[in-house]
Amino acid sequence: MRARRKSWAAHEIETNPFCIETPDEHAGRWHEFFDNSNPIHLEIGCGMGRYITHMAEANPDVNFIAFERERNVIVTGARAARESGRRIAFIIGDASDLSGCFTPGEISRIYINFPDPWPNRKKWRKRRLTHSSFLQTYKRVMGASGEIFHKTDNAELFEFSLEQFSQHGFALRNISLDLHKSSFAGNIMTEYESKFSAQNLPIYRCEAFYNKGVPHVEN
Amino acid sequence: MRARRKSWAAHEIETNPFCIETPDEHAGRWHEFFDNSNPIHLEIGCGMGRYITHMAEANPDVNFIAFERERNVIVTGARAARESGRRIAFIIGDASDLSGCFTPGEISRIYINFPDPWPNRKKWRKRRLTHSSFLQTYKRVMGASGEIFHKTDNAELFEFSLEQFSQHGFALRNISLDLHKSSFAGNIMTEYESKFSAQNLPIYRCEAFYNKGVPHVEN
Repeated sequence: MRARRKSWAAHEIETNPFCIETPDEHAGRWHEFFDNSNPIHLEIGCGMGRYITHMAEANPDVNFIAFERERNVIVTGARAARESGRRIAFIIGDASDLSGCFTPGEISRIYINFPDPWPNRKKWRKRRLTHSSFLQTYKRVMGASGEIFHKTDNAELFEFSLEQFSQHGFALRNISLDLHKSSFAGNIMTEYESKFSAQNLPIYRCEAFYNKGVPHVEN
Repeated sequence: MRARRKSWAAHEIETNPFCIETPDEHAGRWHEFFDNSNPIHLEIGCGMGRYITHMAEANPDVNFIAFERERNVIVTGARAARESGRRIAFIIGDASDLSGCFTPGEISRIYINFPDPWPNRKKWRKRRLTHSSFLQTYKRVMGASGEIFHKTDNAELFEFSLEQFSQHGFALRNISLDLHKSSFAGNIMTEYESKFSAQNLPIYRCEAFYNKGVPHVEN
Protein backbone atom coordinates (compact mmCIF):
# COMPACT_ATOMS: atom_id res chain seq x y z
CA MET A 1 0.00 0.00 0.00
CA ARG A 2 1.25 3.46 -0.89
CA ALA A 3 0.30 6.66 0.89
CA ARG A 4 1.15 10.30 0.59
CA ARG A 5 4.18 11.57 2.45
CA LYS A 6 3.40 12.42 6.06
CA SER A 7 5.23 15.42 7.47
CA TRP A 8 5.34 13.87 10.94
CA ALA A 9 6.46 10.43 9.79
CA ALA A 10 10.23 10.89 10.05
CA HIS A 11 10.05 12.16 13.61
CA GLU A 12 7.59 9.46 14.65
CA ILE A 13 9.76 6.70 13.18
CA GLU A 14 12.85 8.09 14.88
CA THR A 15 11.35 8.44 18.35
CA ASN A 16 8.79 5.62 18.54
CA PRO A 17 10.30 2.60 20.35
CA PHE A 18 7.78 0.23 18.68
CA CYS A 19 8.91 1.31 15.22
CA ILE A 20 11.95 -0.69 14.24
CA GLU A 21 14.36 0.00 11.40
CA THR A 22 17.13 -2.40 12.39
CA PRO A 23 15.26 -5.64 13.18
CA ASP A 24 18.39 -7.79 12.77
CA GLU A 25 19.56 -6.53 16.15
CA HIS A 26 16.61 -8.30 17.77
CA ALA A 27 17.11 -11.68 16.04
CA GLY A 28 16.94 -14.40 18.67
CA ARG A 29 16.00 -11.86 21.32
CA TRP A 30 12.43 -10.88 20.49
CA HIS A 31 11.17 -12.30 23.76
CA GLU A 32 13.34 -9.71 25.49
CA PHE A 33 11.71 -6.98 23.41
CA PHE A 34 8.26 -8.14 24.54
CA ASP A 35 9.47 -9.00 28.04
CA ASN A 36 7.56 -12.28 28.10
CA SER A 37 7.70 -15.77 26.60
CA ASN A 38 4.39 -15.67 24.71
CA PRO A 39 4.28 -17.01 21.13
CA ILE A 40 5.11 -14.49 18.41
CA HIS A 41 2.89 -13.94 15.37
CA LEU A 42 4.08 -12.03 12.35
CA GLU A 43 2.09 -10.15 9.73
CA ILE A 44 3.76 -9.59 6.36
CA GLY A 45 2.54 -6.39 4.72
CA CYS A 46 0.54 -4.85 7.55
CA GLY A 47 -0.42 -1.62 5.80
CA MET A 48 -1.56 0.92 8.39
CA GLY A 49 -1.83 -1.83 10.98
CA ARG A 50 -5.57 -2.15 11.43
CA TYR A 51 -5.52 -5.95 11.35
CA ILE A 52 -2.57 -6.48 13.67
CA THR A 53 -3.85 -3.87 16.12
CA HIS A 54 -7.21 -5.59 16.40
CA MET A 55 -5.54 -9.00 16.62
CA ALA A 56 -3.37 -7.71 19.48
CA GLU A 57 -6.44 -6.41 21.31
CA ALA A 58 -8.22 -9.75 20.90
CA ASN A 59 -5.19 -11.87 21.83
CA PRO A 60 -3.34 -10.41 24.82
CA ASP A 61 -1.33 -13.64 25.28
CA VAL A 62 0.32 -13.36 21.88
CA ASN A 63 3.13 -11.03 20.78
CA PHE A 64 2.64 -9.40 17.40
CA ILE A 65 5.19 -8.18 14.90
CA ALA A 66 4.16 -6.35 11.74
CA PHE A 67 6.26 -6.05 8.59
CA GLU A 68 5.71 -3.32 6.01
CA ARG A 69 8.08 -1.69 3.56
CA GLU A 70 6.19 1.57 3.06
CA ARG A 71 7.36 4.01 5.75
CA ASN A 72 4.50 6.44 5.23
CA VAL A 73 2.00 3.61 5.72
CA ILE A 74 3.38 1.65 8.66
CA VAL A 75 3.97 4.80 10.68
CA THR A 76 0.22 5.16 11.26
CA GLY A 77 0.02 1.82 13.07
CA ALA A 78 3.21 2.47 14.99
CA ARG A 79 1.92 5.82 16.22
CA ALA A 80 -1.38 4.27 17.35
CA ALA A 81 0.53 1.56 19.24
CA ARG A 82 2.72 4.15 20.98
CA GLU A 83 -0.31 6.24 21.93
CA SER A 84 -2.24 3.24 23.28
CA GLY A 85 0.80 1.70 24.91
CA ARG A 86 0.02 -1.65 23.24
CA ARG A 87 3.34 -3.31 22.53
CA ILE A 88 3.41 -4.28 18.84
CA ALA A 89 6.67 -4.26 16.89
CA PHE A 90 6.33 -2.44 13.57
CA ILE A 91 9.26 -3.32 11.34
CA ILE A 92 10.05 -1.21 8.31
CA GLY A 93 11.41 -3.77 5.90
CA ASP A 94 10.95 -6.13 3.00
CA ALA A 95 9.73 -9.72 3.34
CA SER A 96 12.82 -10.89 1.49
CA ASP A 97 14.94 -9.75 4.45
CA LEU A 98 12.94 -11.83 6.93
CA SER A 99 15.60 -14.47 7.49
CA GLY A 100 18.00 -12.11 9.19
CA CYS A 101 15.39 -10.80 11.61
CA PHE A 102 14.59 -14.06 13.39
CA THR A 103 16.30 -17.22 14.53
CA PRO A 104 14.68 -20.56 13.56
CA GLY A 105 11.54 -21.25 15.52
CA GLU A 106 11.18 -17.71 16.85
CA ILE A 107 7.91 -17.16 14.94
CA SER A 108 4.95 -19.49 15.41
CA ARG A 109 2.41 -18.04 12.99
CA ILE A 110 2.47 -15.78 9.92
CA TYR A 111 -0.39 -13.74 8.44
CA ILE A 112 -0.40 -12.89 4.75
CA ASN A 113 -3.44 -10.73 4.05
CA PHE A 114 -4.30 -9.42 0.59
CA PRO A 115 -0.77 -9.41 -0.77
CA ASP A 116 -0.06 -7.94 -4.19
CA PRO A 117 -1.19 -10.73 -6.58
CA TRP A 118 1.33 -9.77 -9.30
CA PRO A 119 0.58 -10.89 -12.86
CA ASN A 120 0.42 -14.64 -13.50
CA ARG A 121 3.60 -14.77 -15.54
CA LYS A 122 6.81 -16.53 -14.65
CA LYS A 123 8.69 -13.27 -14.40
CA TRP A 124 6.31 -11.89 -11.77
CA ARG A 125 5.07 -14.93 -9.91
CA LYS A 126 8.26 -15.17 -7.87
CA ARG A 127 7.40 -11.86 -6.23
CA ARG A 128 4.22 -13.27 -4.75
CA LEU A 129 4.46 -13.62 -0.99
CA THR A 130 3.30 -17.25 -1.24
CA HIS A 131 5.93 -18.21 -3.82
CA SER A 132 8.23 -21.12 -3.10
CA SER A 133 11.21 -18.95 -2.11
CA PHE A 134 9.18 -17.05 0.49
CA LEU A 135 7.63 -20.24 1.87
CA GLN A 136 11.10 -21.61 2.46
CA THR A 137 12.03 -18.45 4.36
CA TYR A 138 8.86 -18.66 6.44
CA LYS A 139 9.60 -22.26 7.36
CA ARG A 140 13.09 -21.26 8.41
CA VAL A 141 11.87 -18.66 10.90
CA MET A 142 9.06 -20.93 12.15
CA GLY A 143 11.32 -23.94 12.71
CA ALA A 144 9.91 -27.41 13.46
CA SER A 145 6.27 -26.39 13.20
CA GLY A 146 4.30 -23.39 12.11
CA GLU A 147 1.24 -22.06 10.36
CA ILE A 148 0.31 -19.41 7.84
CA PHE A 149 -3.09 -17.71 7.76
CA HIS A 150 -3.79 -16.30 4.31
CA LYS A 151 -6.55 -14.11 2.87
CA THR A 152 -7.01 -12.65 -0.59
CA ASP A 153 -9.72 -11.42 -2.93
CA ASN A 154 -7.79 -12.64 -5.97
CA ALA A 155 -8.97 -16.09 -7.13
CA GLU A 156 -5.94 -16.72 -9.31
CA LEU A 157 -3.53 -15.87 -6.48
CA PHE A 158 -5.50 -18.12 -4.13
CA GLU A 159 -5.23 -21.05 -6.55
CA PHE A 160 -1.49 -20.40 -6.74
CA SER A 161 -1.12 -20.14 -2.96
CA LEU A 162 -2.93 -23.42 -2.28
CA GLU A 163 -0.72 -25.17 -4.81
CA GLN A 164 2.46 -23.68 -3.37
CA PHE A 165 1.53 -24.50 0.23
CA SER A 166 0.68 -28.10 -0.60
CA GLN A 167 3.83 -28.54 -2.67
CA HIS A 168 6.01 -27.35 0.22
CA GLY A 169 4.83 -29.70 2.92
CA PHE A 170 2.03 -27.60 4.32
CA ALA A 171 -1.35 -29.22 4.96
CA LEU A 172 -4.46 -27.05 4.62
CA ARG A 173 -7.42 -26.48 6.91
CA ASN A 174 -10.32 -24.05 7.26
CA ILE A 175 -10.34 -23.24 3.57
CA SER A 176 -13.07 -20.78 2.68
CA LEU A 177 -13.99 -19.78 -0.86
CA ASP A 178 -16.35 -17.07 0.40
CA LEU A 179 -15.21 -15.98 3.83
CA HIS A 180 -17.85 -13.38 4.55
CA LYS A 181 -20.66 -15.85 3.83
CA SER A 182 -18.99 -18.73 5.70
CA SER A 183 -19.45 -19.85 9.29
CA PHE A 184 -15.95 -18.63 10.21
CA ALA A 185 -16.24 -16.64 13.44
CA GLY A 186 -14.08 -13.76 14.62
CA ASN A 187 -12.79 -12.55 11.27
CA ILE A 188 -10.89 -9.30 11.64
CA MET A 189 -10.93 -7.24 8.47
CA THR A 190 -7.93 -5.45 7.04
CA GLU A 191 -8.31 -1.92 5.66
CA TYR A 192 -8.40 -3.31 2.14
CA GLU A 193 -10.86 -6.05 3.05
CA SER A 194 -13.45 -3.73 4.54
CA LYS A 195 -13.38 -1.52 1.45
CA PHE A 196 -13.55 -4.57 -0.77
CA SER A 197 -16.32 -6.38 1.10
CA ALA A 198 -18.76 -3.61 0.20
CA GLN A 199 -18.57 -4.85 -3.39
CA ASN A 200 -19.93 -8.24 -2.29
CA LEU A 201 -17.23 -10.23 -4.05
CA PRO A 202 -15.80 -13.35 -2.40
CA ILE A 203 -12.84 -13.29 -0.04
CA TYR A 204 -10.70 -16.44 -0.03
CA ARG A 205 -9.01 -17.70 3.12
CA CYS A 206 -7.01 -20.70 4.28
CA GLU A 207 -4.74 -21.90 7.03
CA ALA A 208 -1.60 -23.77 6.00
CA PHE A 209 0.33 -25.69 8.64
CA TYR A 210 3.13 -28.16 9.11
CA ASN A 211 4.71 -30.07 11.94
CA LYS A 212 7.94 -31.90 11.24
CA GLY A 213 7.39 -34.08 14.29
CA VAL A 214 3.98 -35.24 13.07
CA PRO A 215 4.16 -36.35 9.44
CA HIS A 216 1.16 -36.50 7.16
CA VAL A 217 -1.30 -39.27 7.98
CA GLU A 218 0.01 -41.52 5.26
CA ASN A 219 2.66 -40.69 2.74
CA MET B 1 -27.08 -40.83 -10.28
CA ARG B 2 -30.37 -42.70 -10.31
CA ALA B 3 -32.31 -43.64 -13.40
CA ARG B 4 -35.49 -45.45 -14.18
CA ARG B 5 -35.35 -49.21 -14.56
CA LYS B 6 -34.34 -50.29 -18.05
CA SER B 7 -36.01 -53.40 -19.40
CA TRP B 8 -32.93 -54.34 -21.40
CA ALA B 9 -30.43 -53.74 -18.59
CA ALA B 10 -30.32 -57.22 -17.05
CA HIS B 11 -29.64 -58.90 -20.38
CA GLU B 12 -27.04 -56.30 -21.37
CA ILE B 13 -25.19 -56.67 -18.07
CA GLU B 14 -25.22 -60.43 -18.36
CA THR B 15 -23.94 -60.65 -21.90
CA ASN B 16 -21.65 -57.60 -22.24
CA PRO B 17 -18.01 -58.62 -21.70
CA PHE B 18 -17.08 -55.01 -20.78
CA CYS B 19 -19.63 -54.95 -17.95
CA ILE B 20 -18.10 -56.53 -14.88
CA GLU B 21 -19.89 -57.68 -11.76
CA THR B 22 -17.06 -59.67 -10.16
CA PRO B 23 -14.07 -57.28 -10.44
CA ASP B 24 -12.14 -59.08 -7.68
CA GLU B 25 -11.39 -61.84 -10.18
CA HIS B 26 -9.33 -59.37 -12.22
CA ALA B 27 -7.26 -57.99 -9.33
CA GLY B 28 -3.62 -57.97 -10.35
CA ARG B 29 -4.55 -59.08 -13.85
CA TRP B 30 -6.15 -56.00 -15.42
CA HIS B 31 -3.43 -55.75 -18.00
CA GLU B 32 -4.55 -59.16 -19.25
CA PHE B 33 -8.09 -57.85 -19.55
CA PHE B 34 -6.86 -54.97 -21.71
CA ASP B 35 -4.24 -57.10 -23.43
CA ASN B 36 -1.60 -54.37 -23.18
CA SER B 37 0.65 -52.73 -20.59
CA ASN B 38 -0.73 -49.20 -20.84
CA PRO B 39 -1.40 -47.25 -17.63
CA ILE B 40 -4.85 -47.74 -16.11
CA HIS B 41 -7.07 -44.81 -15.13
CA LEU B 42 -10.12 -45.27 -12.95
CA GLU B 43 -13.26 -43.16 -12.69
CA ILE B 44 -15.27 -43.46 -9.49
CA GLY B 45 -18.97 -42.81 -10.09
CA CYS B 46 -19.04 -42.73 -13.88
CA GLY B 47 -22.80 -42.28 -14.30
CA MET B 48 -23.78 -43.15 -17.86
CA GLY B 49 -20.13 -43.05 -18.90
CA ARG B 50 -20.00 -39.94 -21.03
CA TYR B 51 -16.77 -38.67 -19.44
CA ILE B 52 -14.87 -41.95 -19.51
CA THR B 53 -16.00 -42.69 -23.07
CA HIS B 54 -14.72 -39.33 -24.32
CA MET B 55 -11.52 -39.74 -22.31
CA ALA B 56 -10.96 -43.14 -23.90
CA GLU B 57 -11.46 -41.67 -27.37
CA ALA B 58 -8.98 -38.88 -26.64
CA ASN B 59 -6.39 -41.13 -24.98
CA PRO B 60 -5.93 -44.37 -26.92
CA ASP B 61 -2.74 -45.19 -24.98
CA VAL B 62 -4.54 -45.38 -21.65
CA ASN B 63 -6.81 -48.13 -20.30
CA PHE B 64 -9.96 -46.91 -18.60
CA ILE B 65 -12.03 -48.53 -15.87
CA ALA B 66 -15.29 -46.98 -14.68
CA PHE B 67 -16.94 -47.64 -11.32
CA GLU B 68 -20.63 -47.05 -10.68
CA ARG B 69 -23.01 -48.66 -8.24
CA GLU B 70 -26.26 -47.92 -10.10
CA ARG B 71 -26.85 -50.80 -12.52
CA ASN B 72 -29.50 -48.94 -14.53
CA VAL B 73 -27.08 -46.06 -15.08
CA ILE B 74 -23.76 -47.74 -15.85
CA VAL B 75 -25.38 -50.09 -18.34
CA THR B 76 -25.78 -47.23 -20.82
CA GLY B 77 -22.02 -46.67 -20.99
CA ALA B 78 -21.32 -50.39 -21.10
CA ARG B 79 -23.69 -50.86 -24.02
CA ALA B 80 -22.11 -47.96 -25.94
CA ALA B 81 -18.65 -49.46 -25.36
CA ARG B 82 -19.79 -52.87 -26.60
CA GLU B 83 -21.38 -51.37 -29.70
CA SER B 84 -18.34 -49.25 -30.55
CA GLY B 85 -15.88 -51.99 -29.62
CA ARG B 86 -13.92 -49.54 -27.46
CA ARG B 87 -12.51 -51.57 -24.57
CA ILE B 88 -13.55 -49.84 -21.33
CA ALA B 89 -14.23 -51.87 -18.19
CA PHE B 90 -17.49 -50.86 -16.53
CA ILE B 91 -17.57 -52.21 -13.00
CA ILE B 92 -20.84 -52.38 -11.09
CA GLY B 93 -19.73 -51.73 -7.55
CA ASP B 94 -19.23 -49.43 -4.62
CA ALA B 95 -16.11 -47.32 -4.09
CA SER B 96 -15.71 -48.82 -0.64
CA ASP B 97 -15.00 -52.21 -2.29
CA LEU B 98 -12.17 -50.77 -4.39
CA SER B 99 -9.34 -52.39 -2.44
CA GLY B 100 -10.27 -55.92 -3.45
CA CYS B 101 -10.44 -55.05 -7.15
CA PHE B 102 -6.82 -54.01 -7.64
CA THR B 103 -3.36 -54.86 -6.41
CA PRO B 104 -1.15 -51.98 -5.13
CA GLY B 105 0.11 -49.83 -7.98
CA GLU B 106 -2.28 -51.25 -10.58
CA ILE B 107 -4.04 -47.88 -10.98
CA SER B 108 -2.10 -44.75 -11.92
CA ARG B 109 -4.82 -42.08 -11.92
CA ILE B 110 -8.31 -41.68 -10.44
CA TYR B 111 -11.08 -39.34 -11.56
CA ILE B 112 -13.70 -38.15 -9.07
CA ASN B 113 -16.20 -36.00 -10.92
CA PHE B 114 -19.16 -34.33 -9.23
CA PRO B 115 -19.51 -36.82 -6.40
CA ASP B 116 -22.43 -36.56 -4.00
CA PRO B 117 -21.37 -33.73 -1.65
CA TRP B 118 -23.32 -35.12 1.34
CA PRO B 119 -24.23 -32.70 4.12
CA ASN B 120 -21.35 -31.06 6.00
CA ARG B 121 -21.96 -32.93 9.23
CA LYS B 122 -19.66 -35.44 10.88
CA LYS B 123 -22.15 -38.25 10.36
CA TRP B 124 -22.27 -37.69 6.61
CA ARG B 125 -18.82 -36.36 5.73
CA LYS B 126 -17.27 -39.82 5.90
CA ARG B 127 -19.38 -40.83 2.89
CA ARG B 128 -17.72 -38.23 0.71
CA LEU B 129 -15.47 -39.79 -1.92
CA THR B 130 -12.62 -37.49 -0.89
CA HIS B 131 -12.86 -38.41 2.79
CA SER B 132 -9.77 -39.71 4.56
CA SER B 133 -10.82 -43.37 4.46
CA PHE B 134 -11.33 -43.28 0.69
CA LEU B 135 -8.05 -41.43 0.12
CA GLN B 136 -6.23 -44.20 1.95
CA THR B 137 -7.88 -46.78 -0.27
CA TYR B 138 -6.98 -44.81 -3.40
CA LYS B 139 -3.35 -44.63 -2.30
CA ARG B 140 -3.33 -48.36 -1.73
CA VAL B 141 -4.42 -49.15 -5.29
CA MET B 142 -2.11 -46.47 -6.77
CA GLY B 143 0.98 -47.63 -4.84
CA ALA B 144 4.18 -45.58 -4.78
CA SER B 145 2.82 -42.69 -6.81
CA GLY B 146 -0.49 -41.56 -8.17
CA GLU B 147 -2.83 -38.72 -8.93
CA ILE B 148 -6.48 -37.82 -8.50
CA PHE B 149 -8.32 -35.43 -10.85
CA HIS B 150 -11.33 -33.94 -9.11
CA LYS B 151 -14.23 -31.73 -10.27
CA THR B 152 -17.28 -30.47 -8.42
CA ASP B 153 -19.78 -27.63 -8.49
CA ASN B 154 -20.07 -27.67 -4.71
CA ALA B 155 -17.83 -25.06 -3.05
CA GLU B 156 -18.07 -26.59 0.40
CA LEU B 157 -17.14 -30.03 -0.89
CA PHE B 158 -14.22 -28.54 -2.79
CA GLU B 159 -12.90 -26.83 0.35
CA PHE B 160 -13.19 -30.17 2.14
CA SER B 161 -11.47 -32.08 -0.67
CA LEU B 162 -8.49 -29.70 -0.82
CA GLU B 163 -8.04 -30.01 2.94
CA GLN B 164 -8.28 -33.80 2.85
CA PHE B 165 -5.86 -34.15 -0.05
CA SER B 166 -3.25 -31.89 1.58
CA GLN B 167 -3.63 -33.64 4.94
CA HIS B 168 -2.98 -37.03 3.37
CA GLY B 169 0.29 -36.30 1.63
CA PHE B 170 -1.08 -35.15 -1.72
CA ALA B 171 0.29 -31.97 -3.26
CA LEU B 172 -2.03 -29.91 -5.45
CA ARG B 173 -1.66 -28.47 -8.94
CA ASN B 174 -3.86 -26.94 -11.63
CA ILE B 175 -6.42 -25.73 -9.13
CA SER B 176 -9.25 -23.86 -10.81
CA LEU B 177 -11.98 -22.01 -8.95
CA ASP B 178 -13.91 -21.40 -12.16
CA LEU B 179 -12.98 -24.08 -14.66
CA HIS B 180 -15.11 -22.96 -17.58
CA LYS B 181 -13.63 -19.46 -17.46
CA SER B 182 -10.07 -20.68 -16.92
CA SER B 183 -7.36 -21.32 -19.46
CA PHE B 184 -7.57 -25.08 -18.88
CA ALA B 185 -7.68 -26.76 -22.28
CA GLY B 186 -9.33 -30.02 -23.25
CA ASN B 187 -11.92 -30.21 -20.49
CA ILE B 188 -14.34 -33.08 -21.09
CA MET B 189 -17.70 -32.47 -19.48
CA THR B 190 -19.66 -35.10 -17.58
CA GLU B 191 -23.43 -35.39 -18.10
CA TYR B 192 -24.02 -33.47 -14.89
CA GLU B 193 -21.46 -30.81 -15.77
CA SER B 194 -22.96 -29.95 -19.14
CA LYS B 195 -26.40 -29.50 -17.60
CA PHE B 196 -24.94 -27.48 -14.78
CA SER B 197 -22.71 -25.25 -16.91
CA ALA B 198 -25.78 -23.72 -18.52
CA GLN B 199 -26.51 -22.05 -15.19
CA ASN B 200 -23.19 -20.21 -15.41
CA LEU B 201 -22.11 -21.16 -11.88
CA PRO B 202 -18.46 -22.01 -11.23
CA ILE B 203 -17.01 -25.48 -11.54
CA TYR B 204 -14.09 -26.27 -9.24
CA ARG B 205 -11.25 -28.54 -10.30
CA CYS B 206 -7.91 -29.70 -8.99
CA GLU B 207 -5.24 -32.33 -9.47
CA ALA B 208 -3.85 -33.99 -6.34
CA PHE B 209 -0.68 -36.04 -6.64
CA TYR B 210 1.95 -37.81 -4.59
CA ASN B 211 5.18 -39.64 -5.19
CA LYS B 212 6.69 -41.49 -2.28
CA GLY B 213 10.06 -41.48 -4.00
CA VAL B 214 10.09 -37.68 -4.32
CA PRO B 215 9.21 -36.02 -1.02
CA HIS B 216 7.92 -32.49 -0.71
CA VAL B 217 10.50 -29.81 -1.47
CA GLU B 218 11.22 -29.10 2.17
CA ASN B 219 9.44 -30.68 5.11
